[in-house]
Amino acid sequence: MSPTPSAVALIGLGKMGANMARRLARGGVTVHGYDTAAETRQALSAEYAQITAHDSLVSAISALPQPRLVWLMLPAGEISEQTLNTILPLLSAGDVVIDGANAYYKDSQARAARLRALGIGFVDAGVSGGVWGGDNGYTIMLGGHEADIARVRPLVEVLAPAADRGWLHCGPNGAGHYVKMVHNGIEYGMMQAFAEGFALMEAKQDLNLDLAAVSEVWRHGSVIRSWLLDLTADTLQQDTTLSDIQPKVPDSGEGRWTVLEAVELGVPAPVISNALFMRFASQGKHDYASKLLAMMRKAFGGHAVGKA
Amino acid sequence: MSPTPSAVALIGLGKMGANMARRLARGGVTVHGYDTAAETRQALSAEYAQITAHDSLVSAISALPQPRLVWLMLPAGEISEQTLNTILPLLSAGDVVIDGANAYYKDSQARAARLRALGIGFVDAGVSGGVWGGDNGYTIMLGGHEADIARVRPLVEVLAPAADRGWLHCGPNGAGHYVKMVHNGIEYGMMQAFAEGFALMEAKQDLNLDLAAVSEVWRHGSVIRSWLLDLTADTLQQDTTLSDIQPKVPDSGEGRWTVLEAVELGVPAPVISNALFMRFASQGKHDYASKLLAMMRKAFGGHAVGKA
Amino acid sequence: MSPTPSAVALIGLGKMGANMARRLARGGVTVHGYDTAAETRQALSAEYAQITAHDSLVSAISALPQPRLVWLMLPAGEISEQTLNTILPLLSAGDVVIDGANAYYKDSQARAARLRALGIGFVDAGVSGGVWGGDNGYTIMLGGHEADIARVRPLVEVLAPAADRGWLHCGPNGAGHYVKMVHNGIEYGMMQAFAEGFALMEAKQDLNLDLAAVSEVWRHGSVIRSWLLDLTADTLQQDTTLSDIQPKVPDSGEGRWTVLEAVELGVPAPVISNALFMRFASQGKHDYASKLLAMMRKAFGGHAVGKA
Amino acid sequence: MSPTPSAVALIGLGKMGANMARRLARGGVTVHGYDTAAETRQALSAEYAQITAHDSLVSAISALPQPRLVWLMLPAGEISEQTLNTILPLLSAGDVVIDGANAYYKDSQARAARLRALGIGFVDAGVSGGVWGGDNGYTIMLGGHEADIARVRPLVEVLAPAADRGWLHCGPNGAGHYVKMVHNGIEYGMMQAFAEGFALMEAKQDLNLDLAAVSEVWRHGSVIRSWLLDLTADTLQQDTTLSDIQPKVPDSGEGRWTVLEAVELGVPAPVISNALFMRFASQGKHDYASKLLAMMRKAFGGHAVGKA
Repeated sequence: MSPTPSAVALIGLGKMGANMARRLARGGVTVHGYDTAAETRQALSAEYAQITAHDSLVSAISALPQPRLVWLMLPAGEISEQTLNTILPLLSAGDVVIDGANAYYKDSQARAARLRALGIGFVDAGVSGGVWGGDNGYTIMLGGHEADIARVRPLVEVLAPAADRGWLHCGPNGAGHYVKMVHNGIEYGMMQAFAEGFALMEAKQDLNLDLAAVSEVWRHGSVIRSWLLDLTADTLQQDTTLSDIQPKVPDSGEGRWTVLEAVELGVPAPVISNALFMRFASQGKHDYASKLLAMMRKAFGGHAVGKA
Repeated sequence: MSPTPSAVALIGLGKMGANMARRLARGGVTVHGYDTAAETRQALSAEYAQITAHDSLVSAISALPQPRLVWLMLPAGEISEQTLNTILPLLSAGDVVIDGANAYYKDSQARAARLRALGIGFVDAGVSGGVWGGDNGYTIMLGGHEADIARVRPLVEVLAPAADRGWLHCGPNGAGHYVKMVHNGIEYGMMQAFAEGFALMEAKQDLNLDLAAVSEVWRHGSVIRSWLLDLTADTLQQDTTLSDIQPKVPDSGEGRWTVLEAVELGVPAPVISNALFMRFASQGKHDYASKLLAMMRKAFGGHAVGKA
Repeated sequence: MSPTPSAVALIGLGKMGANMARRLARGGVTVHGYDTAAETRQALSAEYAQITAHDSLVSAISALPQPRLVWLMLPAGEISEQTLNTILPLLSAGDVVIDGANAYYKDSQARAARLRALGIGFVDAGVSGGVWGGDNGYTIMLGGHEADIARVRPLVEVLAPAADRGWLHCGPNGAGHYVKMVHNGIEYGMMQAFAEGFALMEAKQDLNLDLAAVSEVWRHGSVIRSWLLDLTADTLQQDTTLSDIQPKVPDSGEGRWTVLEAVELGVPAPVISNALFMRFASQGKHDYASKLLAMMRKAFGGHAVGKA
Repeated sequence: MSPTPSAVALIGLGKMGANMARRLARGGVTVHGYDTAAETRQALSAEYAQITAHDSLVSAISALPQPRLVWLMLPAGEISEQTLNTILPLLSAGDVVIDGANAYYKDSQARAARLRALGIGFVDAGVSGGVWGGDNGYTIMLGGHEADIARVRPLVEVLAPAADRGWLHCGPNGAGHYVKMVHNGIEYGMMQAFAEGFALMEAKQDLNLDLAAVSEVWRHGSVIRSWLLDLTADTLQQDTTLSDIQPKVPDSGEGRWTVLEAVELGVPAPVISNALFMRFASQGKHDYASKLLAMMRKAFGGHAVGKA
């Protein structure tokens, strides 16, 4: 196990960032966190002596000993050239920036090149584990130069479920976010597979199946046992009707990027793509197509069309 | 060209049946039609001297010279054992029943066997052409014994766009409805392909495309020119926004049977199947799955879920 | 925990049946097994005093005390009317037949009705866990009457991972095989999701990803951790190239039945269906379609077509 | 109808370009063609007095009166910055470059901006009609400034099936190639729909369907009548077995770009995407996934795996 680094700046203390700060603090790391939300800052600072929550990027980064480790944990899409433009003047050659949010791996590769030109290291870190990672540890997928990974390793050994497993130096820059992208693409497919299966059981009304009980029994010995099933069982235990839930599923960039990659590589990805498309449909993005289909049926067959 | 038969009983004078009656009458066939709707009967009888619209099955069938030709043109699903049970006692050996509605080819095969045992012929007839077939002629796909087809041929030569084309003896009983089923499966895929394409153009707002003009230009020389495109162009000419149309697309048996057949034969049919599934989704049948997906995202990532 | 029954006849000692016999024997159940393979019989009899392997159905069933429990564990599709016809004369009112193989739930419902008329109980039992279930325990999904389930319960408590979990009385006859069918449908989707993801990484050659290491790291803390991932990691640990493996994936009835059910219920199942279709394609069942597509491209665009 | 322009340089005299040169020549346009293949040049020059085939870009472009019209008809992907770099020094402000090949609309927008800065017009022209367009006329979809379209119009009126139809100024630069992209995406879906349908009939061996006859009958009156069906009927008339055709379907950029666009706009395109994926699969790009699926089945179920 590597020696624990003295300190890291953790930029973004949202759902993921805050739990990571806690896990790092418990692992003996000094965390200089930054977030725009005052209550988040106060709560975290109060919880752990090892966490100092700052109200400015300058303050957080300046508090670090050199060479610095700056871990960005901003919501997907918010790490922009503008954010980097703010941070970069505060850094020096030898510092290492880690982007732990979801980002398109090609963007990460471009960012790595840009920072490298300034002598600053860049590590793209895919982080999985959701809101449970603070307790269970996170799976961490890293892309970057060997030397930069070595710098980041002590943090990662604390964040992962154990020092010797649950994290991987996947390859050069971009590899971390690439593997995370694929991970999430698989996640889309798995989720949709479960959703289809439970929907089939829900619709088979004459068998009157208890979906909560079914989800629970599958957790023990079945081929499809998985963490997603565990979570699904928890959900169904509370309510199987889902009657007050809106049937609308957002999508973030990861599923989309996976499909772009399938197209670019010429590799079939029907399951991941169709899982993504069903989310689009749930957002009402198939409505125009459906309207046109209804009108076509009317045009050739005289079939009735409903009014919106 | 075969000699025109003296008469046929046409059971069912709905959108399809009425236009077929008209086309048969214009072709010199005596039509004894049957329908439950009085105004339909009166209108047709008034239009053509060759059409007599009856208010009972007995009356329509009894009016025929023997051996009889009875063409069923009932809405899909309404030809049941019960309907046949009503008709069969009115028929004699040597008569031929044609089922021109959409039916599952296995059901047609079973019906053919049942009638054959009584010495009555059975022809399964797939009829395509929609509400325009009365003017343009219908494509007719026939399944049955050679001798029964010979009996039906004079009718079919009138119904088709021309005596020598647009109709086919596809094979033994079931073959007519099988080929019609596949025809409609292809139709589902083509319709969805067009719908997706127009939806992509509608969503690409910065190009401000005129969908009516695009649909029109494609009609002249493009690879995708087709009758469905002609109809789509007509529709879009009237309104491209479709703003008052309900985004809900019914499905009838044909698409479903095609997918069952793909599964039974082990032949991939992703396009036809996904076209069918998007119709199901438009009917709200993916809502439970979407709700569960939203709840899974909440469970692992703490993502917000909308209330219904 | 229910009292252990004295004995069961286990018909079929293949991969699944043999391991189930062992687990039952270890749990104190007397097993009268039947299989056509002499070496299988000898091996099992030698292993466990509680197992007697018979070379005839009559012998196995006659060895049971009444009322009897007869558990069928024949490969999918082999339980036919013929098999039941052989067994039924050997049984008496009060006996219970359990079908633990994969079967279409509608067939199971018909069988239950047939046996019920003879006073013989029938339980459809979906069994999941694969070749590992002997050690880990099986997930068991049961359909049938309360009284029959009560009879079967002591066996199931031994076969499941624990007496109080991993088995479920899902509902009336058919419910056990229905839930197992959906389980396997989900399994198809999950497997395809993983396969697509790993294929994307394999094709992304410039990142030179170590797929074995990636599959391993995902096992610790990621959202997609699952037993299928554990098995995939084992496989990739031995060989990531899969260069000597034939790219052909068989399918059994379960995936097909799930798609039939989706069609019958009108519920979208694009992920499960497309997973099935990719298996069909791997079996060469898309070849005719591909040939026709190549010829169409030639027809409109003059594109070259390869010779087989 | 606009006055016919005196001359155009047509860069690229391949399958599409040569036929376009012929149609332009027949329409009274002076064509200065360029191609690297000597026999193509000689053949075209010999055929039409209005066609002069040059062996260098400089020669072809220099032969034009100013302001010039230069129509690029290079195979997809070959119009690169390098090609433009060669041509641009030969052009002057006021000239107009038309790109009639398939190109990603975003690339076309970038090229338009680049040329605009030099005072040179740019029109992106989607051209559909395949090898038959020379006789039937081409559908032409144009993107660009009003003034540039006016310059190009006389050419387009000759190339289209008629002066007043079959061509459209779709919108600003990029719109022509966008609409062509969507056109081809729809084409992918339609082709796959037909391919699936015929594959289902081919696999249904007990009905012994004559696929050539079926394709022919559908041409007359059916809902799916279309030019693609006409071509398919021609193909099947010659051979329905396709036994000596390689089951491999190439894909060019258009289908891929359509899927990228669906992802970018968040619009479901399951039919177009799955049609693309089946082409990828026919190219062997699902093989790794299939191998891994086979190994997973072995891992959990002990199922046999074939050797490559």
